[in-house]
Amino acid sequence: MTEPIPEGYAPWRPGSPYMNHLADLGALYRRASDGVLALRIAQPHMNTHGIAHGGLLATLADSALGLAINEQTGLSIVTVQMSVEYLNAVRPGDWLEAHVQIDKQGRRLVYATCLLRVGGRVMLKANAVFAVRAAPVPASDA
Amino acid sequence: MTEPIPEGYAPWRPGSPYMNHLADLGALYRRASDGVLALRIAQPHMNTHGIAHGGLLATLADSALGLAINEQTGLSIVTVQMSVEYLNAVRPGDWLEAHVQIDKQGRRLVYATCLLRVGGRVMLKANAVFAVRAAPVPASDA
Amino acid sequence: MTEPIPEGYAPWRPGSPYMNHLADLGALYRRASDGVLALRIAQPHMNTHGIAHGGLLATLADSALGLAINEQTGLSIVTVQMSVEYLNAVRPGDWLEAHVQIDKQGRRLVYATCLLRVGGRVMLKANAVFAVRAAPVPASDA
Amino acid sequence: MTEPIPEGYAPWRPGSPYMNHLADLGALYRRASDGVLALRIAQPHMNTHGIAHGGLLATLADSALGLAINEQTGLSIVTVQMSVEYLNAVRPGDWLEAHVQIDKQGRRLVYATCLLRVGGRVMLKANAVFAVRAAPVPASDA
Repeated sequence: MTEPIPEGYAPWRPGSPYMNHLADLGALYRRASDGVLALRIAQPHMNTHGIAHGGLLATLADSALGLAINEQTGLSIVTVQMSVEYLNAVRPGDWLEAHVQIDKQGRRLVYATCLLRVGGRVMLKANAVFAVRAAPVPASDA
Repeated sequence: MTEPIPEGYAPWRPGSPYMNHLADLGALYRRASDGVLALRIAQPHMNTHGIAHGGLLATLADSALGLAINEQTGLSIVTVQMSVEYLNAVRPGDWLEAHVQIDKQGRRLVYATCLLRVGGRVMLKANAVFAVRAAPVPASDA
Repeated sequence: MTEPIPEGYAPWRPGSPYMNHLADLGALYRRASDGVLALRIAQPHMNTHGIAHGGLLATLADSALGLAINEQTGLSIVTVQMSVEYLNAVRPGDWLEAHVQIDKQGRRLVYATCLLRVGGRVMLKANAVFAVRAAPVPASDA
Repeated sequence: MTEPIPEGYAPWRPGSPYMNHLADLGALYRRASDGVLALRIAQPHMNTHGIAHGGLLATLADSALGLAINEQTGLSIVTVQMSVEYLNAVRPGDWLEAHVQIDKQGRRLVYATCLLRVGGRVMLKANAVFAVRAAPVPASDA
């Protein structure tokens, strides 16, 4: 990829084996100012129709959600449910950004939304529910 | 992985660049008798909690759905919406199978369900809606 | 409606004000053998297209899920998330049945599926996640 | 209900039998300036826990979405899929507003979001996909 990286973004290396492999297909970037995660869509991300694979997009949304929630709340979470709408095809060369919003932080559940955007255009909406991993337990069980 | 592959499965190579990269992390298999797609979960599939990444599971479901629908209906489809429930953590060594059922084949939309199973246990439920890509057109428009 | 009620069903009166009002539009029935909830679709259930309103169908699914989970597990639950697919239009005269399956009963979350059927045909799929209301707490916190 | 109706709202009578019945339980209102649909939550809307029934909330979201899409696009639509997250309990006396946003208007599918709010607080998120009913037809068929 010789296309420039938008200003404000720096390379970002994920912490998990699976996301690290994904980053091998095309570097991931993060914007320090607001934590937006992004990548340049390229050939390795394609499905058989020549557009970005739905699994890649869902993975990016899931990871961006988990990362933002972990950073903003300090909670360790696991995904309970995620609903994804695919609005527009994402194509090679697209600079794809993951914008996360936490809708509710409860004691046991966190609700959040992730929009994948190219420019101002929404390509995917993801709405997810996460369970807080370490529920308070009596000391004798700890 | 030195664990044996269950009987009836043969290595399966996906057609898209993205799924091919996923297959590099751990070979994909398919059962000829019923078309079930499967893989042995291993270290490269892990998230930061040491369980299979939600994005991997969603990707497997999406691909298994697309493959089964394409084969059983002959239609070219794109994912419109997918809802995923994560019931149980998938762990290294698990033999993960994707079971697909087509719930409705319409002229413009196809509804289907994918269950990811380990043994008899459901790990993930995915319900998806697909749009038929090439709607039938009158011959004069073709 | 003068159409007969299928064998095995008896009138069922819901416990909540909202469902009671719904039952005023057309009696609800329950089958003792398997707990299936059902009703005869009629004019008061219609939307502006002359088919059963999506809100009615979602309400029936939500209630049937809550009822079955409460009865089978004894837990008090609230709905966290529900995804609904509308496969086929439900019409006046249809005998609509709600079939519930509990997919996972965890300590804090319950996952379940409800299919609305007319004859053998699936009209709606609902997948829901419920939170257990009163989590077990140490006696000293109670 | 003797609580006042917020400024800018006028009584609104729905067009379908099912929504009309719902309006009998508690009048529906609409704000001319932005089309927001609203109602005062009261006793007839309760479930067995003494909070607004999930089915009522899903119905309100579905109807508000359909109404807004129909008015803003002129299209006749049917619900394909709706995912609903229940963030906070809605209680008697709450003035519940349905805010709709159309995310994408395609030729065959429309994607939209509905947030149910009380004051500034989001109580429910609904993301839905609708199918356009009457595909464009040649003028001679119109």
